[in-house]
Amino acid sequence: MSQIDQTIDRQTLEARAVNTIRALAIDGTQAAGSGHPGMPMGSAAMAYVLWTRFLKHNPQNPQWHNRDRYVQSAGHGSMLIYSLLHLSGYDLPMAELQGYRRWGSKTPGHPEYGLTPGIEITTGPLGQGISSAVGMALAEAHLSANYNRPGHDIVDHYSYVIASDGDLMEGVSGEASSLAGHLGLGKLIVLYDDNKISIDGKTDITFSEDVLKRYEAYGWHTQRVEDGNDLTAIEAAITTAKNETAKPSIIAVRTIIGYGAPNQGSSAVHGAPLGEEKAALAKENLGALWPAFTVPEDVLAHYRQALKDGEAAEQDWRLRFERYKESFPELAAQYERVMAGEIPGELAKALPVFEVGKSTATRNSSQQIINALAAELPQLLGGSADLAESNKTTIKGVPFINHHDYAGRNIHFGVREHGMAAVANGLSLHGGLRPYVATFLIFSDYLRPSLRLAALMHQPVIYVFTHDSIGLGGDGPTHQPIEQLMALRAIPNVTVIRPADANESAGAWLAALEHKSGPTVLALSRQNLPHLDVAASNVKKGAYVLADSPGTPEVILIGTGSEVHVCLAAKQLLAEEGIAARVISMPSFELFDAQGEDYREAILPASVRARVAVEAGASLSWQKYVGLDGGLITLDRFGASADGAELMEKFGFTAQNVVETAKKLLA
Amino acid sequence: MSQIDQTIDRQTLEARAVNTIRALAIDGTQAAGSGHPGMPMGSAAMAYVLWTRFLKHNPQNPQWHNRDRYVQSAGHGSMLIYSLLHLSGYDLPMAELQGYRRWGSKTPGHPEYGLTPGIEITTGPLGQGISSAVGMALAEAHLSANYNRPGHDIVDHYSYVIASDGDLMEGVSGEASSLAGHLGLGKLIVLYDDNKISIDGKTDITFSEDVLKRYEAYGWHTQRVEDGNDLTAIEAAITTAKNETAKPSIIAVRTIIGYGAPNQGSSAVHGAPLGEEKAALAKENLGALWPAFTVPEDVLAHYRQALKDGEAAEQDWRLRFERYKESFPELAAQYERVMAGEIPGELAKALPVFEVGKSTATRNSSQQIINALAAELPQLLGGSADLAESNKTTIKGVPFINHHDYAGRNIHFGVREHGMAAVANGLSLHGGLRPYVATFLIFSDYLRPSLRLAALMHQPVIYVFTHDSIGLGGDGPTHQPIEQLMALRAIPNVTVIRPADANESAGAWLAALEHKSGPTVLALSRQNLPHLDVAASNVKKGAYVLADSPGTPEVILIGTGSEVHVCLAAKQLLAEEGIAARVISMPSFELFDAQGEDYREAILPASVRARVAVEAGASLSWQKYVGLDGGLITLDRFGASADGAELMEKFGFTAQNVVETAKKLLA
Repeated sequence: MSQIDQTIDRQTLEARAVNTIRALAIDGTQAAGSGHPGMPMGSAAMAYVLWTRFLKHNPQNPQWHNRDRYVQSAGHGSMLIYSLLHLSGYDLPMAELQGYRRWGSKTPGHPEYGLTPGIEITTGPLGQGISSAVGMALAEAHLSANYNRPGHDIVDHYSYVIASDGDLMEGVSGEASSLAGHLGLGKLIVLYDDNKISIDGKTDITFSEDVLKRYEAYGWHTQRVEDGNDLTAIEAAITTAKNETAKPSIIAVRTIIGYGAPNQGSSAVHGAPLGEEKAALAKENLGALWPAFTVPEDVLAHYRQALKDGEAAEQDWRLRFERYKESFPELAAQYERVMAGEIPGELAKALPVFEVGKSTATRNSSQQIINALAAELPQLLGGSADLAESNKTTIKGVPFINHHDYAGRNIHFGVREHGMAAVANGLSLHGGLRPYVATFLIFSDYLRPSLRLAALMHQPVIYVFTHDSIGLGGDGPTHQPIEQLMALRAIPNVTVIRPADANESAGAWLAALEHKSGPTVLALSRQNLPHLDVAASNVKKGAYVLADSPGTPEVILIGTGSEVHVCLAAKQLLAEEGIAARVISMPSFELFDAQGEDYREAILPASVRARVAVEAGASLSWQKYVGLDGGLITLDRFGASADGAELMEKFGFTAQNVVETAKKLLA
Repeated sequence: MSQIDQTIDRQTLEARAVNTIRALAIDGTQAAGSGHPGMPMGSAAMAYVLWTRFLKHNPQNPQWHNRDRYVQSAGHGSMLIYSLLHLSGYDLPMAELQGYRRWGSKTPGHPEYGLTPGIEITTGPLGQGISSAVGMALAEAHLSANYNRPGHDIVDHYSYVIASDGDLMEGVSGEASSLAGHLGLGKLIVLYDDNKISIDGKTDITFSEDVLKRYEAYGWHTQRVEDGNDLTAIEAAITTAKNETAKPSIIAVRTIIGYGAPNQGSSAVHGAPLGEEKAALAKENLGALWPAFTVPEDVLAHYRQALKDGEAAEQDWRLRFERYKESFPELAAQYERVMAGEIPGELAKALPVFEVGKSTATRNSSQQIINALAAELPQLLGGSADLAESNKTTIKGVPFINHHDYAGRNIHFGVREHGMAAVANGLSLHGGLRPYVATFLIFSDYLRPSLRLAALMHQPVIYVFTHDSIGLGGDGPTHQPIEQLMALRAIPNVTVIRPADANESAGAWLAALEHKSGPTVLALSRQNLPHLDVAASNVKKGAYVLADSPGTPEVILIGTGSEVHVCLAAKQLLAEEGIAARVISMPSFELFDAQGEDYREAILPASVRARVAVEAGASLSWQKYVGLDGGLITLDRFGASADGAELMEKFGFTAQNVVETAKKLLA
């Protein structure tokens, strides 16, 4: 063959390789009878270039630490990533693509982390993927700053994103992108699928801003590729972006949604299968005339080059890691431990014990605990959304991460709660880190979508939510959580812990760190709480008998957090009246519910139906423990601006009120 | 006096007027022992210029329709607005300022709408004020497009905002600002208190973006004032902003936080009183040597000019309105009705009745209902966050609001759920409008902070949340709500309604519209549901007996939404086995709980303890109705990607499962 023939042949193969993705998107959505063909068809070319010419990954080992991360923020275009995974040789057989969106398949409607090999993150809720990719890029920057040594770049990879218009309209991506620009995360590269179409029509019906100018304002490097099918231009732009190491990069790639379909470029191809007729026409337009769910042999071979390249890349890295290990055995051992997610077995011993007779706000105890734990856990890092002094989250003697300065373990997230939580997901997903993030409990509302994704992805992010009740005082109802505890408890796979004192706070942190398969929320007080004479280890059972009366109790008082102390005082008063009360401290519904029936019965005997729940928050769901006839000293209204102690009294969180409620139940 | 002397004298008075605000901020926070002096001291000059030279308002009638709206997005600096209200002559005596942040005062830690005359909106949670101001400006644009006639500008005011760094870091403000730029809301003017300080220190620790460039990218007009104490420059900038009527304006005013305090310009003055010594020094620096909580007589007189100016302005508007009323009596009458928040009494008659024997998805019934109601209610307007086709929210035959085209009643909010809900708060607060907003129920998480503020402010915003369960099918767990219903029910003053069919949907919309003191959430199905033979009016009781057995029922089945039909089928099967069951449809916890005890006892007799709750959502809190021993057919895990009907079966939402659960309870 002449050189020209070879080139033509090569173009043909590449064009067919791109169109294979499009054909699979058509087939997958047709077979499922639902789904989003438009995005994969529109962005097939940029994805092809990224995956075949840049992405450093090993399909045989999706866990290889030093792989590039690929985040498909536009999760609705899931057929794109499923096709890429299958074609590149990941363990995702064609049968799985045929089962797209079906019960039991590995190809759900939106990509799910943990379910499908090669999926780095669950996406679908818009804005989350790109924001978490900021966390992945920060993780890479932080770990490379701490573990690399001259001549030994063992942490050295890029984080790539394909993002849609919708991703960039969401506020969370603005927050995280502003932070990424501030930090100068040069190894974060976003391909913006700039197709000018969203579900409701052309983006110009509501989204006429200059996106690239906005990203320049954030401090990003920006480029534009005018033709989303121009492989050479896409390759050149990604190369330029890689070479720009001082700033994150965004490349706006002008694409045509549903490219190849007779109704390409319209919102009609966004969210529904093309239909048999248009599907056939599209395949004809694309020259993709092979049978549904098949791949031309040469195209498959072309993609499967990833297997060889990936194995070689990982092998090369392994050899380099061996050399690193010889030169820096301790550092290498630590790297291996943190990447394996190991937590030292003797962590409990590192916890401070808080002396009875003193009082501390649990946010302050938490600060002491964080600092004690940070000494044991090099993977522990975190920060607050501009409330570090209030949330008490700073690891002392350790620098803050800042622009081009990533070695520290404290992070200033700015007033960006949602971005913070999304970034934390990326830090956690990357591996090697145990992130915690902080704000006031009330502002957990700002970050719920990311917290929910942490729960869905089984990521052990720790949320330090302080100012956990009306007890915070004068800031008033805009700052006083009421429903937040219940709203967080309602999310599957989230553990909420509200410790009653410093020692329970130690137990709460330990439980959070030892829990590896889901997020933990710590709800901490602004106000001082007397130290209890209890072992931190009680917390992991979720609830325990803190104070009891001889014999079977007549009434059970259940409290959490600061209200446990109200229950203790009430028990005293009841004893004076000859009424035997039991006080249960219940720092965590979820941990208690996870105990065996025997334990739960021992704590909350079915025979004792006189039960009072005391919590300065919404009543909803306390009936779960006190039943239809139980007493509720809770709060089903918004708070008020006044001194915290005064509010507690005004709203009935007093021993006297508990006593009266208990007596009414017994009457 | 020579002219120069007069000028000097004037400057002196103005300087003292500005410093009076600063002194009151010092006094208020000192007396309270907490609060934020820094912001009011830093932004006193711009606030002074805005309030004395521009703001068109009548302190004697804070409800005057055509007043300019002032939104202090930086709610933590509440002493600023309390001082301005007091000084301008609103009904807020000095004693209230002395009671700052105290129980029962009208001066809570953050400004609260409804509590204090002249407060247009509750602020404090950052980003919300500026975003809701977009809604106020949109309300003005929409009402003026619909009610003004040539020579009759009866709706004609500006919306002004003072926003902080924190406001502009929050994603919600980015979303709303992008929308405002798209729409070209020229009468929205934001003064950005650009003080380079946030709680954790200088903003350059995390916020180094070019804010004005970002706003240019959104399509805003931008200006910078280099000296935040330069009254002339501030005035010139606001004048320029007013003259720019095609775009919203932002003016970055470089201020010094805590201006006058010895530690001005540092985060130390942000969030705590200055302390006695520094307070004294600050007052000395400012020449504000009059006693605490007093105002120099000439300064007060200077501010109180607002009373005369305001009365004249309102009087002028009233005369103009009378002329308008003569020329356009019907339009004027309609304007008066919508501004009074009136809902026609015969609204129920306008509702469609849905024939038994057919099936409709409640999102589709909702669309029919919206269209029927829109014909009766000119104040009804709304839209979706880029899901209009899925949420079924479009009012047919009515245009969409777009760039410089505000007469329509449909709004494309873009993929900006949080911004949408904040804008809705502004639309509602403005008066004259009943906004509804829409997205998938799962994405209610994205907008919770704004929804909570609607509840706190008693604003009757209606949330149309479709795709209300796993029944949505293939989109999988990222899109399937589980905990959302409970999490919304937990918020005080929110009414959540999940109708079981089209007729209940009509009742739900009616209840939402007739409820004027809080938001209503409508949770609607994606899938078809058979029409029930029920009156829409049942919904307002929250729960009712949908199907009963003769005599006292042995078991009560309680369902909501789509699961009501599962209960009905189960009742049939139980009857075949000779078991008498009652089916309760419970569209709304809150409406049911608001009924008298007799009604509640009649529906849910205390004597019948065999109760089964059936809802495709979190179990948490259903014990409230079924007790400790009740049956729960609920969902405490994330969903899965598969056909909706298949999922319902896999997860146990079947008549057979209800029957088995009921029989276990009876055994």
